[in-house]
Amino acid sequence: MPARGTEPAPADPDLVPLQAALDALADPVRRLIVRALAAAPDWTHACGSIDLPVSKATRTHHFTVLRAVGLLEQRDEGARRLNRLRREEFDRRFPGLLALVLAEEPAER
Amino acid sequence: MPARGTEPAPADPDLVPLQAALDALADPVRRLIVRALAAAPDWTHACGSIDLPVSKATRTHHFTVLRAVGLLEQRDEGARRLNRLRREEFDRRFPGLLALVLAEEPAER
Repeated sequence: MPARGTEPAPADPDLVPLQAALDALADPVRRLIVRALAAAPDWTHACGSIDLPVSKATRTHHFTVLRAVGLLEQRDEGARRLNRLRREEFDRRFPGLLALVLAEEPAER
Repeated sequence: MPARGTEPAPADPDLVPLQAALDALADPVRRLIVRALAAAPDWTHACGSIDLPVSKATRTHHFTVLRAVGLLEQRDEGARRLNRLRREEFDRRFPGLLALVLAEEPAER
């Protein structure tokens, strides 16, 4: 098992205020990340592997925001930081919210 | 039946993008308005009758935003503009979203 000291601890969705969850998901690029993670198996997407129309710094910021509201768990494998969408935990805390994001139609974006 | 020509037409929640709904509800004052309307019978709250920590112009803006995403229906009675929260219509379009706002704990705000 690799050392995990540098991996950020996942936020507990139970401690996240609704304000933070709405702020996190009100950004279209962050919803794009969430949908990309939902469309692939857990731990397959590295932060850099999702095609996003933003700079590297902005990309990092978006992942940080999503992790802070309990939507992401992250694990380092070599130079890659892999992600898991915390679908069930987030859905327990905010029933229906993630489903709205995943069901968003391309025409809406 | 009074003339209703000056009353704004209610927006159809079915035509509202998720982005607009999230933007509307990401504002804590607008969530406060929504909760106040939900706590009273339909058509009892005038725009001016909810205690809000904002200027009159900002108050008007907040009601406009809520109406634009299909959350409000409005009816003029004399000098007062009364409101109805379009709970069922909005919930059909965005299942669970309004429930999260109504269930928000005071400590979260």
